[in-house]
Amino acid sequence: MTLHTEPPLRPAALIVGAGDATGGAIAKRFAREGLVACVTRRSADKLAPLVDEITRLGGQARGFASDARKEDEVVALVETIEREVGPIEVMVFNIGANVPCSILDETARKYFKIWEMACFGGFLAGREVARRMVARGRGTILFTGATAGLRGSANFAAFAGAKHALRALAQSMARELGPKNIHVAHVVVDGAIDTDFIRESFPERYALKDQDGILNPDHIADNYWHLHAQPRDAWTHELDLRPWMERW
Amino acid sequence: MTLHTEPPLRPAALIVGAGDATGGAIAKRFAREGLVACVTRRSADKLAPLVDEITRLGGQARGFASDARKEDEVVALVETIEREVGPIEVMVFNIGANVPCSILDETARKYFKIWEMACFGGFLAGREVARRMVARGRGTILFTGATAGLRGSANFAAFAGAKHALRALAQSMARELGPKNIHVAHVVVDGAIDTDFIRESFPERYALKDQDGILNPDHIADNYWHLHAQPRDAWTHELDLRPWMERW
Amino acid sequence: MTLHTEPPLRPAALIVGAGDATGGAIAKRFAREGLVACVTRRSADKLAPLVDEITRLGGQARGFASDARKEDEVVALVETIEREVGPIEVMVFNIGANVPCSILDETARKYFKIWEMACFGGFLAGREVARRMVARGRGTILFTGATAGLRGSANFAAFAGAKHALRALAQSMARELGPKNIHVAHVVVDGAIDTDFIRESFPERYALKDQDGILNPDHIADNYWHLHAQPRDAWTHELDLRPWMERW
Amino acid sequence: MTLHTEPPLRPAALIVGAGDATGGAIAKRFAREGLVACVTRRSADKLAPLVDEITRLGGQARGFASDARKEDEVVALVETIEREVGPIEVMVFNIGANVPCSILDETARKYFKIWEMACFGGFLAGREVARRMVARGRGTILFTGATAGLRGSANFAAFAGAKHALRALAQSMARELGPKNIHVAHVVVDGAIDTDFIRESFPERYALKDQDGILNPDHIADNYWHLHAQPRDAWTHELDLRPWMERW
Repeated sequence: MTLHTEPPLRPAALIVGAGDATGGAIAKRFAREGLVACVTRRSADKLAPLVDEITRLGGQARGFASDARKEDEVVALVETIEREVGPIEVMVFNIGANVPCSILDETARKYFKIWEMACFGGFLAGREVARRMVARGRGTILFTGATAGLRGSANFAAFAGAKHALRALAQSMARELGPKNIHVAHVVVDGAIDTDFIRESFPERYALKDQDGILNPDHIADNYWHLHAQPRDAWTHELDLRPWMERW
Repeated sequence: MTLHTEPPLRPAALIVGAGDATGGAIAKRFAREGLVACVTRRSADKLAPLVDEITRLGGQARGFASDARKEDEVVALVETIEREVGPIEVMVFNIGANVPCSILDETARKYFKIWEMACFGGFLAGREVARRMVARGRGTILFTGATAGLRGSANFAAFAGAKHALRALAQSMARELGPKNIHVAHVVVDGAIDTDFIRESFPERYALKDQDGILNPDHIADNYWHLHAQPRDAWTHELDLRPWMERW
Repeated sequence: MTLHTEPPLRPAALIVGAGDATGGAIAKRFAREGLVACVTRRSADKLAPLVDEITRLGGQARGFASDARKEDEVVALVETIEREVGPIEVMVFNIGANVPCSILDETARKYFKIWEMACFGGFLAGREVARRMVARGRGTILFTGATAGLRGSANFAAFAGAKHALRALAQSMARELGPKNIHVAHVVVDGAIDTDFIRESFPERYALKDQDGILNPDHIADNYWHLHAQPRDAWTHELDLRPWMERW
Repeated sequence: MTLHTEPPLRPAALIVGAGDATGGAIAKRFAREGLVACVTRRSADKLAPLVDEITRLGGQARGFASDARKEDEVVALVETIEREVGPIEVMVFNIGANVPCSILDETARKYFKIWEMACFGGFLAGREVARRMVARGRGTILFTGATAGLRGSANFAAFAGAKHALRALAQSMARELGPKNIHVAHVVVDGAIDTDFIRESFPERYALKDQDGILNPDHIADNYWHLHAQPRDAWTHELDLRPWMERW
């Protein structure tokens, strides 16, 4: 006879890269729907405010320090969540690395790191959760993409390469895993997002917020939820999101 | 002094091509949200059951006999709705013409008619409502597309041409009218839909319904509503919809 | 016993829309390679200088007044060439109709005419020559496209629609007729061409000619010949052409 | 006073990845046109037959053992060629890594290595020669792509990712370097090529050679030369090559 009881497992939403406003908003949205938001970034302490906020709002959340580029860390992350929290119903990969540079000046190290962060991390997380989801016959995998995933442009060879590769990953996984009942989708976020970074670095851009000219992270999150909630007879595999006044 | 009073105007949703299951489902969805569903097809009598059903469900609907290929009829249609029903908040163009044929056997008449139905009608309705919406500074225009709008294939020169042209219309209008606060989007419906036509003509395909292998019109309609409801800082301009098991 | 002898039939190149510099250069290029250049435009008299020039250069040419939008005229054109000149080895469809307009002001008549010229004419000529080529088991069909065939943009709904539809025609025909040994390709010409129209209407653009900033029709023609000359184990189905300094 | 004289420098064509039939054919083609073919692969001894053949045919060639994935080796390679052979007029990156695998079984190591070979090597070689070419204000850079660079598919997440990233590299470089008079193009080779690998591993595919159903490397090479020879007012940035009977 055992005296202690395990807490019951609950469906989890894993958000890899919850360091920015978008990842945070997505975590909150899925927590609001009853999933346990498992949020990651490299250092756990920065996750505390997000976990606290979700808890305060009545949701459940767990923060995990995890380097998305390290296979062993990602394997352990998924293993831990599945054992301690519950089955991962949805995984959102939300790490970008938009650092422009002339091809003439791009270093091999930076070219590699941008790919490692924005694409390789997506592969690791995608594969690990796909293995669990396929075994269960259900799940959703969402990748945050960018316009750079659709076309290359001057000074964006590294970022465009990483985002193209991420889109190829999403499309390949969607085609392989769709018939196994796993919904894989790619979201093209095209435009500035309402973040501290934009407010501080691009104030004139941020000023467009008054006329809805930059993306509200909560509205991005609503679309991620919409994708997850789609019945399987009508799945979306790619959608774009941009402000009404954005040139594209 | 006049004794009769005009009924108050209410926001309208115009669904051009509400003869099939998809158009009907979209009409019901928008009526459920409080818009007056204005549904069209060439002969009005076939619209009566749809209008009755919407009314029975507590919504408002009006049926209009209108040939989407005739400029004067489309102009009059929009004029009538705006005057008698209310401002058109959303227009859905939902006419297809998927008739495969070898290029060697295609007649000029059929090639033209497929374009006229699936594209020219979209231009007429799109332009007419755009004129009203731009004057008001608001509105949504949704075009039902198909995979044939993304790639040509053997025996589909006519349909692919019409659907490519429709997508070009949607994209051109989105780029011109977005900054005028008009949301224009293109929906790629990829797969068989749960309709009488599929049930009768492709029974083996229809049998996939048991495992959600064909699209439920109500679920398509939910996505049209989702597009219309998006806040303008995060608009989608193209999304695809297909069953989980569809090859693409 | 007959006293007169028919001239021997020789392989023909049909260039539909040889009214501009590009069509003329293509005609000259194919004539130089030994094909009889059969050039068309609506009024034959304007073709005389081109036919004369080709003859002077030692080639063979025939001018045909033909409205590319009229089925009976296109049928008769192909019939006449095949009977009087020789088998059509290659057909180039080279009619554009780049007339920008706001969607709000576009007339139904102009929207239709742009499609009729830039797309429907391509269908008629393509189908007619395809019927002959398939019967012989050989031939090349080349469509002159534009960037507007790849993406829609503000004020270009009509032209983008026509060019998208033309590209869909090319792609559909390539997929259907390739396995019948007919080479169908689409050429995206992206940039100003060295023509009277550009010189007179866009002098500042034309000034870029000094630094090779506008397309030389002869160089366009070299690429059309390159496509026609490709061995069938390595066919190109789409290529783009633009000046080195063009933004794209 | 020095008694020995340096040989005069001659324009060089660098073919990175000349281990297969395609790279070899491209080297021979450029050597035939008077450039010194500088061919690389990881081990130099396997290059000797190719260098001998080019020499026997009256051309000039040099073999270089070079690991395309190592920055220092690529930097040294370009430095050596520019100093000992001559200015690199054209660089062809021709390394693939088409190894299919289910996403569920893909190892992190292999996912990385496929990217490293098929994309990162292209970045290193592209950047190094771009630096020289931009300084001289002329040059051509050609990347061998694949259909996997245009769309992802089941079991091809790694290869599609690498090829998408390579295409993004080509497109980004083309847009940045075009206005500096450097011609960057991407060639989509779609279909089996006449190689030992195909002959041994896919004999039924190889049997299509009798009807021109697989690509002849010499014909691929002709198209690379065509791209390099294009005058700068009419540059192609992407073309596809496939057998007439290929499904696409």
